[in-house]
Amino acid sequence: MQIFTFVLMSVLVFFAGNPARTIAADAPVHGTFALFEVEPTWTTLSSDEKTKGVQEATALVESFKDRVTFDSYWTYGLTTDSHFLIRLQSSEAKINQELLTQLAGTGLGRHLDLEFTISGITKGLNYAPDFPDLLAQLKAAKYEGDPSTYVIMIPTRKSAEWWNLSKEERVALIREHTVPTIAYLKTVKRKLFHATGLADADFITIFETNNLEDFNNLVLALRMVKEDKYNIRLGSPTVLGTLKSWNEVGALLAK
Amino acid sequence: MQIFTFVLMSVLVFFAGNPARTIAADAPVHGTFALFEVEPTWTTLSSDEKTKGVQEATALVESFKDRVTFDSYWTYGLTTDSHFLIRLQSSEAKINQELLTQLAGTGLGRHLDLEFTISGITKGLNYAPDFPDLLAQLKAAKYEGDPSTYVIMIPTRKSAEWWNLSKEERVALIREHTVPTIAYLKTVKRKLFHATGLADADFITIFETNNLEDFNNLVLALRMVKEDKYNIRLGSPTVLGTLKSWNEVGALLAK
Amino acid sequence: MQIFTFVLMSVLVFFAGNPARTIAADAPVHGTFALFEVEPTWTTLSSDEKTKGVQEATALVESFKDRVTFDSYWTYGLTTDSHFLIRLQSSEAKINQELLTQLAGTGLGRHLDLEFTISGITKGLNYAPDFPDLLAQLKAAKYEGDPSTYVIMIPTRKSAEWWNLSKEERVALIREHTVPTIAYLKTVKRKLFHATGLADADFITIFETNNLEDFNNLVLALRMVKEDKYNIRLGSPTVLGTLKSWNEVGALLAK
Amino acid sequence: MQIFTFVLMSVLVFFAGNPARTIAADAPVHGTFALFEVEPTWTTLSSDEKTKGVQEATALVESFKDRVTFDSYWTYGLTTDSHFLIRLQSSEAKINQELLTQLAGTGLGRHLDLEFTISGITKGLNYAPDFPDLLAQLKAAKYEGDPSTYVIMIPTRKSAEWWNLSKEERVALIREHTVPTIAYLKTVKRKLFHATGLADADFITIFETNNLEDFNNLVLALRMVKEDKYNIRLGSPTVLGTLKSWNEVGALLAK
Amino acid sequence: MQIFTFVLMSVLVFFAGNPARTIAADAPVHGTFALFEVEPTWTTLSSDEKTKGVQEATALVESFKDRVTFDSYWTYGLTTDSHFLIRLQSSEAKINQELLTQLAGTGLGRHLDLEFTISGITKGLNYAPDFPDLLAQLKAAKYEGDPSTYVIMIPTRKSAEWWNLSKEERVALIREHTVPTIAYLKTVKRKLFHATGLADADFITIFETNNLEDFNNLVLALRMVKEDKYNIRLGSPTVLGTLKSWNEVGALLAK
Repeated sequence: MQIFTFVLMSVLVFFAGNPARTIAADAPVHGTFALFEVEPTWTTLSSDEKTKGVQEATALVESFKDRVTFDSYWTYGLTTDSHFLIRLQSSEAKINQELLTQLAGTGLGRHLDLEFTISGITKGLNYAPDFPDLLAQLKAAKYEGDPSTYVIMIPTRKSAEWWNLSKEERVALIREHTVPTIAYLKTVKRKLFHATGLADADFITIFETNNLEDFNNLVLALRMVKEDKYNIRLGSPTVLGTLKSWNEVGALLAK
Repeated sequence: MQIFTFVLMSVLVFFAGNPARTIAADAPVHGTFALFEVEPTWTTLSSDEKTKGVQEATALVESFKDRVTFDSYWTYGLTTDSHFLIRLQSSEAKINQELLTQLAGTGLGRHLDLEFTISGITKGLNYAPDFPDLLAQLKAAKYEGDPSTYVIMIPTRKSAEWWNLSKEERVALIREHTVPTIAYLKTVKRKLFHATGLADADFITIFETNNLEDFNNLVLALRMVKEDKYNIRLGSPTVLGTLKSWNEVGALLAK
Repeated sequence: MQIFTFVLMSVLVFFAGNPARTIAADAPVHGTFALFEVEPTWTTLSSDEKTKGVQEATALVESFKDRVTFDSYWTYGLTTDSHFLIRLQSSEAKINQELLTQLAGTGLGRHLDLEFTISGITKGLNYAPDFPDLLAQLKAAKYEGDPSTYVIMIPTRKSAEWWNLSKEERVALIREHTVPTIAYLKTVKRKLFHATGLADADFITIFETNNLEDFNNLVLALRMVKEDKYNIRLGSPTVLGTLKSWNEVGALLAK
Repeated sequence: MQIFTFVLMSVLVFFAGNPARTIAADAPVHGTFALFEVEPTWTTLSSDEKTKGVQEATALVESFKDRVTFDSYWTYGLTTDSHFLIRLQSSEAKINQELLTQLAGTGLGRHLDLEFTISGITKGLNYAPDFPDLLAQLKAAKYEGDPSTYVIMIPTRKSAEWWNLSKEERVALIREHTVPTIAYLKTVKRKLFHATGLADADFITIFETNNLEDFNNLVLALRMVKEDKYNIRLGSPTVLGTLKSWNEVGALLAK
Repeated sequence: MQIFTFVLMSVLVFFAGNPARTIAADAPVHGTFALFEVEPTWTTLSSDEKTKGVQEATALVESFKDRVTFDSYWTYGLTTDSHFLIRLQSSEAKINQELLTQLAGTGLGRHLDLEFTISGITKGLNYAPDFPDLLAQLKAAKYEGDPSTYVIMIPTRKSAEWWNLSKEERVALIREHTVPTIAYLKTVKRKLFHATGLADADFITIFETNNLEDFNNLVLALRMVKEDKYNIRLGSPTVLGTLKSWNEVGALLAK
C-alpha cells in the first residue's frame, strides 16, 4: 500500500485543503494525528468563554503556520469517543508536540481530552523502482472527483512473517496489491506515514474522498490480495470523519 | 449473509417502524448506528428541563425527516453501557453526522455519551445472481410474524483468508449459508450494511424480530456452515434492545 | 455442558432461593443477568434517603413478582467492579428490560451503574436423547448439599469449528463431557441459558453451590475433555458472589 | 508450578509476616486478593478524618483476626491503577467477602476503588507423589534469604490442551518444571491457589522475596520448560509491590 | 536485542542527560518507568499553587539524588493518555517506589494520575560471549549524533517457544539480530531492562535519538530477522516523547 500512495502524494500536490503546500519527495515529513474529545465541562461555559477559547486556539494554530501544516476533520457521530481529528505535518515530531502542548493551555484546550495520538514519517519509495510499468500509471493517474468531504485514517501493523519475507517477495506482493487499486486514484486520495517503532503500528494511511462507496470498494480490493494476510492490525481505531477547516471546527465547538 | 439480506430488504419494504419508506435497490444508503448512554447529570435536572431537552431533540429529528430515516431502540438493561440505539439512514454519512452533531447541542444531547458508533453503506447483490434458484425463494419469502419488538445489531469482520478466496469459492460458501436460513425469513427481518474501510468491521447486520428463540436458532444455523470459520469478529458488541418510537424513547428519558 | 444442566434444572425444581417456582421443561425462559456497581454518590446520601431508595426498589421488584422470577447475589469483594448481580427470568426479555428500566428510576437505581448485562433463553434438550443411559442417571441425581451459599456465572463461546462438527460428533463430545460430572450433581446446581446471537457468547451457565472445592473440581473435569478445546471464551467475566435475598442486599446497601 | 509450591508452603510455615499461623496441609484455604486504588476524594479530607478512617479500617481487620489471615502490600508506583493489595485467607471465601464488604463501609473504605479482585483455594498435592525424589528435596529446602520485602502476584491460565493431556504427561511436564527451580527455594517463597471456575484463571501464585534478580531468574527458568507452552495467560495483571504491615499501609494512607 | 544494548550501555556512559553517572557493568540497576497524566483539577489551581506544587516535587527529586537517577520525558501530544514519563534507576525497586509514593503526596502529585508503570532490572551479558567478533564492534561503536531529543520506550514479551529454544539457537538468532543494527549505534542509544516475572513483559527497551528516521529504520531492521517471530508483544504501549530536564517539565506544568 505504501508505495503508490507515496508516489501519488509526491506527484499530486493537491491534498487535504492545503493545495499550496508541496511536500518534496525526499524530505521526511513528521505527521502526528491527534483525536480529541471535548469534555462535558466545555458545555457549561458561556458563549463568550467558548468563543474566546476557540480564538486562542486559532491564533495558536496561525502562529505555527510556517512550521506546521495543519488539517482538521470533524469526527463526532462517526468515530467513537471523539469530536475532531487534527493532522500536524512538520519537519520534526517535536514541533507537532510543541503545538499540541501549547494548544492544551488555551481556553479551548483546557477542555479537550486527547483520546488517541499516533505519529509517523513519510519516506522515499521502497518497492516502486522494481515495477516501473505500474509506477508510470501511478504517476499518470489524477484525482478527478469533486472536492473531498470524507476522511478515513487507518493504522496498520504487519506480522513478523511479512518483515521476514525477502525484498523480492514483498515487491511481488506489493505489485499485486497495487494493480487493482490504480482505478481508484481518480476518486480516492491517500497518503502514507511510516510508524514502525514510533507506535504500535507499522503504517498510518489517511484517505480523503467524496465517495464512500468507491472507498469501500478500494479497501475491499486491498483485502482481496495476499498482502492482506500479513496485516495483524487494520484499524483499531478506524477514524471516520468529514473535512472541515479549523474555522469550521471552531464554529461547531463555539455553538 | 449479505446476499439474501439485501434481497429481502429491497423486496420487502416494511421495516423498522418506517413502513412507508421504500429504499430503492441500487441507491446506496448510508447507515449510521449510534449507541448512547445518558450521563448521571441528566437525573439531576428538573422534570421541566428534561421535558424541554427531549422536545428539542424531537424537533431536531423532525426537521431532518426528509433527509434522514430515523429509527430508535431502547437498549437499557439488555446492552452494557447504553440506554438507546439510533439508526440513521440517508444518502450520505455526512448528513447522519450533521444530525448527530446538532443533537449533541440540544438540552438532551448535552447529557448524552456516544458510547459506540459505526457506519456502513448498502450495496447491490454480490453473489445471488450465481444461485438464481435460491434467489427466487428469497424473493418469495415474506415476514409473517407479529410486529417486531426486538432489535439485534451485530458487526462482523472477515479474515484475510475469506477475501482471498476466489469469487466462486465465496459464492459456494454463501450459497451454503443461505439455504438453512430461508425458513427464518418468516419471523426475522434483516438488513445488511457494508463497512469495510469505514469501520473495524466488514459488515453490520441489524435484525428485527418478535421471537428471540427463532432468532437464536437462525444465528445457530449461520454458525453451522463453513462460512462462519472466516468470521474473526462477530459482535463486540452485540447490541440487544427493543423497538421504540422516538416518542417512546423520549418519554422513558423524560421520566 | 448444556444437555444435562437443562435436564437437571427441569427435573429438580429447587433452585436459587425460589423453591416454589417450577419452570416447565419446554416453555422458553428469558434470563437476563445484570451486574451492578453502586456509584460513590450513594455513600453521600443520608441514612433515610438510602432506606427510602432501597424501599422503592423493593416495591418495584415486588410489583413484578407475577411476571419475573428475581434472584439476587452479593458480588462485592469477589468480582471486580461490582456490588451485586441480579438474575431476572420471565417469558420475554422485554419484561426483564422493563423491570430494569423502572429500577433505574428508583431512589436506589439513580446511583447504580449497570456494569455488565447479558441475556439468554432456556431450550429443550439437544443431545440427551442420544445417550439415554446417562439421561437416566442425570434424572436420578439429586442435590444433597447444604443450602447453596455461592453463585458463579460463566459465559462461554464456542468456536466456528464446534458448530461445524456434525451432530453425531457433538453428541459424542457432550457425552464424554457429561460422564465425569454426574458425581457433582450432589453438591453443585447448574442452569444453562442459550445466548447465540443475543450476546457475544453462546451460553451462560449459572452455578450454585455450598462447596467451592467441589465446584473447582467440577470445572476441572469439564476442562479435561475434548469439548473444552472448542471454547474460545470461558468467563470474561466470571462472576463470583454469594446468594442473598433482595432484602439482604437492600440491607447491605442501606448501611 | 503448583506441586512444590504447596509442599513448600505446608512444610515451611513462615510466610508473609504471619509467622505464627500454620496452615494445615489438607484443610482448604480460601484466598482472596483485592487490589485497591485510593480515590482522589481521599486527599481532600482533613488529617483527622484520614486518621479516623484508617483507624476504623484497622479495628475492622483486627475484629476478624481469628477468622481471616490478613496480609497487606504497598503497590503504588510499581503496579498500574493501585495503591495496595490485600490478601485474605480464611476457611470460606464468603468470610473474606464479609470483611471486604464491611471495609467498604469504613471511613477509609468509602474512598477506595476495588480495581481488581481474584479468589482461589489451596489444595492437596497433585503430582508430587509421582516423583518422590524431588519431593524429598522440596521438603528439605529452606528459605535462607533476608526477610522478604517484595511481593509478586501472577494469575495463570492453562490451555484446553494442557487439561486434555493425560495425568502421566502432566506429571512429566511438572517434574521438568520443578527441577530447575529447587535452587530458588532459598531466596523466593511461593504459595499457590487454585482458581479454575472461580476466576478467569486456573492458578494464582504469590511470591515473596528480597531479591528481584533471583526472582527474575526463577521465572525465566519456569518459562524455559515445555509446560510454559500451555500457559495462555501469565499475569494480566502481574502485581508488584512491597510487604507492609497494615499499620504501615495505614500510615502511608493517613499522610 | 538485549546483548549489545547492555554492552553499549556499560561501555558508553553518556546517556539520558545524566552524563556524570556511570553504571557499573555487573551491579543490577532497578529501573521503574512511570507514565503520568495530569488531572483536569490541576488546571483549576492558581499560578502560585501550581508553582508551589512543582517546587515540592522538585525538592523531593533533589532529596533522592544520591539514591535515584531520575530522567524525565515530555510525552503529551505524542503518547495517548499522558503528559510525561519518568525513569527512576536505583539499587532497589523499593527505593523507586518510595520516591513515587512521596511524589504522590506533593502539591503536584495530588493532581497526577499514574497511567502506566513498569519495572525491570539490568543484567550481565547473556549471548555476547558467544560471538566475540560482534562484541568487539559493539564496544568500538560510538554515538556520534547530536544530543538526543526523542525518547521511545517499548515493552516486549517473548513467546514460550522462544524460551524453549536451546541456548545455542537463541545465540544464533540474537547474533542475526545484532548484525544489521550495529550501524545505528551512531545515532540511536539504547538501554535494556529485564522484566520477566516483574511485569507482563520480558524486556523494556528505552531508546534515545535525535533522528526518528534512523530510529524507524533500526526497528525495521529488528523486525526483519527471525527473532522477531518470537515477539508476542511489542509496544502496548509504545511511549514516544522528548527529553526534557525535570525543570523543563516543571515549567511546562506550571504554565
